[in-house]
Amino acid sequence: MLLRALLPRYTRARCNAMPRTYMNQARPALDISGIFPPIATPFNDRERVDYDRLAENLRKYSRTPLRGFVVQGSNGEYAYLSREERVEVVRKVREVVPKEKILIAGSGCESTQATVEMTLEMAKAGAEAVLVVTPCYYKGSMNSSALVHHYTKVADASPVPVILYSVPGNTGLDLPVDAVVSLAQHPNIIGIKDSGGDITRVGLIIHKTRHLGFQVLSGSAGFLLAGYSVGAVGGVCALANVLGPQLCELERLCVNGQWQEARELQYRLIEPNAAVTRRFGIPGLKQAMEWFGYHGGYCRSPLLPLTEHERKDLRKVFTDNAWL
Amino acid sequence: MLLRALLPRYTRARCNAMPRTYMNQARPALDISGIFPPIATPFNDRERVDYDRLAENLRKYSRTPLRGFVVQGSNGEYAYLSREERVEVVRKVREVVPKEKILIAGSGCESTQATVEMTLEMAKAGAEAVLVVTPCYYKGSMNSSALVHHYTKVADASPVPVILYSVPGNTGLDLPVDAVVSLAQHPNIIGIKDSGGDITRVGLIIHKTRHLGFQVLSGSAGFLLAGYSVGAVGGVCALANVLGPQLCELERLCVNGQWQEARELQYRLIEPNAAVTRRFGIPGLKQAMEWFGYHGGYCRSPLLPLTEHERKDLRKVFTDNAWL
Amino acid sequence: MLLRALLPRYTRARCNAMPRTYMNQARPALDISGIFPPIATPFNDRERVDYDRLAENLRKYSRTPLRGFVVQGSNGEYAYLSREERVEVVRKVREVVPKEKILIAGSGCESTQATVEMTLEMAKAGAEAVLVVTPCYYKGSMNSSALVHHYTKVADASPVPVILYSVPGNTGLDLPVDAVVSLAQHPNIIGIKDSGGDITRVGLIIHKTRHLGFQVLSGSAGFLLAGYSVGAVGGVCALANVLGPQLCELERLCVNGQWQEARELQYRLIEPNAAVTRRFGIPGLKQAMEWFGYHGGYCRSPLLPLTEHERKDLRKVFTDNAWL
Amino acid sequence: MLLRALLPRYTRARCNAMPRTYMNQARPALDISGIFPPIATPFNDRERVDYDRLAENLRKYSRTPLRGFVVQGSNGEYAYLSREERVEVVRKVREVVPKEKILIAGSGCESTQATVEMTLEMAKAGAEAVLVVTPCYYKGSMNSSALVHHYTKVADASPVPVILYSVPGNTGLDLPVDAVVSLAQHPNIIGIKDSGGDITRVGLIIHKTRHLGFQVLSGSAGFLLAGYSVGAVGGVCALANVLGPQLCELERLCVNGQWQEARELQYRLIEPNAAVTRRFGIPGLKQAMEWFGYHGGYCRSPLLPLTEHERKDLRKVFTDNAWL
Repeated sequence: MLLRALLPRYTRARCNAMPRTYMNQARPALDISGIFPPIATPFNDRERVDYDRLAENLRKYSRTPLRGFVVQGSNGEYAYLSREERVEVVRKVREVVPKEKILIAGSGCESTQATVEMTLEMAKAGAEAVLVVTPCYYKGSMNSSALVHHYTKVADASPVPVILYSVPGNTGLDLPVDAVVSLAQHPNIIGIKDSGGDITRVGLIIHKTRHLGFQVLSGSAGFLLAGYSVGAVGGVCALANVLGPQLCELERLCVNGQWQEARELQYRLIEPNAAVTRRFGIPGLKQAMEWFGYHGGYCRSPLLPLTEHERKDLRKVFTDNAWL
Repeated sequence: MLLRALLPRYTRARCNAMPRTYMNQARPALDISGIFPPIATPFNDRERVDYDRLAENLRKYSRTPLRGFVVQGSNGEYAYLSREERVEVVRKVREVVPKEKILIAGSGCESTQATVEMTLEMAKAGAEAVLVVTPCYYKGSMNSSALVHHYTKVADASPVPVILYSVPGNTGLDLPVDAVVSLAQHPNIIGIKDSGGDITRVGLIIHKTRHLGFQVLSGSAGFLLAGYSVGAVGGVCALANVLGPQLCELERLCVNGQWQEARELQYRLIEPNAAVTRRFGIPGLKQAMEWFGYHGGYCRSPLLPLTEHERKDLRKVFTDNAWL
Repeated sequence: MLLRALLPRYTRARCNAMPRTYMNQARPALDISGIFPPIATPFNDRERVDYDRLAENLRKYSRTPLRGFVVQGSNGEYAYLSREERVEVVRKVREVVPKEKILIAGSGCESTQATVEMTLEMAKAGAEAVLVVTPCYYKGSMNSSALVHHYTKVADASPVPVILYSVPGNTGLDLPVDAVVSLAQHPNIIGIKDSGGDITRVGLIIHKTRHLGFQVLSGSAGFLLAGYSVGAVGGVCALANVLGPQLCELERLCVNGQWQEARELQYRLIEPNAAVTRRFGIPGLKQAMEWFGYHGGYCRSPLLPLTEHERKDLRKVFTDNAWL
Repeated sequence: MLLRALLPRYTRARCNAMPRTYMNQARPALDISGIFPPIATPFNDRERVDYDRLAENLRKYSRTPLRGFVVQGSNGEYAYLSREERVEVVRKVREVVPKEKILIAGSGCESTQATVEMTLEMAKAGAEAVLVVTPCYYKGSMNSSALVHHYTKVADASPVPVILYSVPGNTGLDLPVDAVVSLAQHPNIIGIKDSGGDITRVGLIIHKTRHLGFQVLSGSAGFLLAGYSVGAVGGVCALANVLGPQLCELERLCVNGQWQEARELQYRLIEPNAAVTRRFGIPGLKQAMEWFGYHGGYCRSPLLPLTEHERKDLRKVFTDNAWL
């Protein structure tokens, strides 16, 4: 954090973007502004976690202005890891990444009790904050009351700050705005990663919660600029696994108010972003990582590797946008 | 099974409804025709599994013509159980229920490997077949190829027959018909529980797979009669936790061709079924169980108990349809 | 009707299926049981209505046991006809078809007033009943109150009985069950064509309205048997433009209780039905009509004719199911 | 236009936001940057168009910096107007509004031929451009080929520039990006009104079409700022019927790069915008107009006036955001 304070180019911009953190002096908020990759988990050909390759990726990422790492966001294939593996990956990541990088661990489970336990373990393993996805299997019952109850229990028990996580593309469920607004008042809930892409909703959440110092992170590189334009403070973007420095540059342009240049950069990121998320999923993300000097590795089954045809289509997206 | 063979009223009907199991002599198929409750898991006030109450429920259910039990279908709150609990519950259920009742255990997990392991454990714990829900978190990548690959691996490894499970209301994903048709050819995949309620799809699956002896179970009491009318052989119905004998009576009427009487009974079941599934979810199911002499018990959080108002609305549904 | 009265095989069955029309003696109900094609409108190569070919189709259809015709259901491209054309087509159809065939005209428009006017014109043009689709452009405002108000105004003004029409595949809107139940009490609203395919909903509607003599028609051949099984009295099926006699045979089997044979026939109709509706739309329907001796003719733009590839796929569906 | 050229504050900004119109000298493009209300159509208590009140509204609007008017966007209840009324309203509007205000008329119908005819009539009635909604009733057949064919025919025939219109909330259909990109090359198709709210999609469309001078208008005030941030040139916003000058102020802040102030204003507009669109629909919009000195008037049936309760909720939204 000290280091960041020394970077003059950020100073004005960040203040500008986030006066709200200063409005609420009582809150010992963790500042989570900036770009975070939800890091992919490389597996070997026997589908075991390849810790060495993971470490190599992290060392490379750590030399860039990425603000930190989200371990076990959706792109980390967390749904395919055992409870033990989830914790172990966080522990290993903490060993590798430098202190000044913020480590956020996904600790969401379906039941409240399991989420509480996982949260405690993640904190012990070195996470500075936890990202808690909405439980979703019984989506018909996951109304605002149930979700507020769930997150409140988790935040009450958590030794580290909690970040809400709404990702309807995976969960089939939007965390309702009224629930977000209510939860933003909890002293241990500091922000939300919103991956839905509804920028009106993002703006409304910020409007209703900024007086509390609540921080909103865009959950996808496709609307990173738009997110900044309405007051988001950063992004957790799958594409940052592939084009991390470029996303940090986009962040810099946005927080510095260089919107024209920001727009040019944003345009070129939309299709690559869609390609490594909605269109080709994690197998696409991991393939693209290989092209950019990182280890994507194998996926766990039932995720299948790209077909030759898909690989060509994916590559074309990156060449068409002048990244390859 | 012996007992059932003695019931003359079923003999003709079952033959009639399922000539296909005889068409494929090579297949040592488990006959899964009949009504199965996906049993609820009663918890105590500390959210621990209440094995005594579970056993009491099962003893009562076992005195009815229910064909068997699905342990850890969606209504068993399986998503809220740890891996160890999932196996333990199956083991305990096996101890309690009589031999002639078929025990089907839900063994689906997100990753293929975890599903294989859970399947092996479920078989060891006494399951005669496993019900495997579609993995769904990365739904954008769960195309037919991925799902066929997943289920094939599981069925190859499983010591007991595998039943597919498509429940879009929870997973946001329909197992595509072409994948079902392809998987029906696997000698260890014997059927599907389809909870989507699209009766045209149910008919098409039966049309395309019945020459293989593939068995289709309706996944909800709301379309049980319609399912029989197009050739389904039974049902796995949440409502059977509450009105088990009545669903068995509906089965009897359908397989005996007493459609007029069947229809009268079916009509009265639609709203109660909707109430304990879509409308009030598992908390509604458990509340209704209490009214009918079973132990519903507590739910695990984040599921909340019904409000007083919801409870009244639920009760009205049962009284309006002359069940209370 | 005379002809039908002579067919003893229908007598018992119809009574059986529809005792409700006798329960409500005050109601001078039009009996709409049976199979109706929502007739296609053949256009010439300049996209003008080809009345000669339409008449030829109708003469052929009229020699089959089809109960009557729906003119300007969705498959009649009514959305592409001017108000004048809509009325003119009905007038011409009435001239051609024999008296004993029931003529139902689609008179739905977006505004209530336009629907009332169109209804009056349709009745004058010879329609014995009108089919009124849900207004849908402002779907966010089309709640039960608005829809009940709309249909009540139309039914109050209509000189002929009104049939509700819910077709979410086109309108993006389900006519809510509570609105249907409320409207079923209007003496001039005699039934509903439900094309949604949710058989549980169909059953519930029948359960809640049959004491009023309200008649439910399945809106697609894909669930015609299932519809009969839960108490529907017939169907308005696009596929009846192509395989009319076959659908009448399916009707006969269902009302006579020959479910085993009915099932065999139903199975073979599911894919052809999907092909001429969801999959290839009206262009597919019109192409298939040509193969079966009817005039499909051109579509109006923006509907495009099938590509060569699509035509082959469509044909394969009919040959695979042994219809060609 | 002259007037605008005199406003120095706009000059730099507009150039900045739209260098592309200068990149394509061959194109005699109509510059449609700025804020347009899709004007509501006031009806009297007999549901007739109230031309006097409409004229009064327009005279008031014309004294504000609104760039022009969209007559018969969705909020004009165009779906409830006869063909004759649609043209007549445009004619009357043209008589009232000053020359420097751009008049855009909605001319979309379901069939291509009807749309062409309506387009010709709208141009004759004084429209300087037409807004053409996607045909949508046969949405299953409205793929890119069909839509490109439709719009090409319309644009070929139109004497005035054509603006595409994608409004999935009403039509259930998104005009696919590939179709937009293809159509942007037509010399007579100058832009799109996109009401879907998917800002990533908006950015992608701009990325792929700006070299052609194609202009994107945000279709809702909820994401107006975000739209500007990614390069949209204006907005067609229902809320401009109520808070027109305020939306023009938001425009000014955005094009001048005063993002901080813009954001503050945008925040206060999100809920009022949602209230007069998604939440309370056109009845809500018309009610709010009355509070702000305009004539909302009656709606046509089946739209119902707000209940007393809804009216209170609507008012609260405006007071909570300090507009009343």
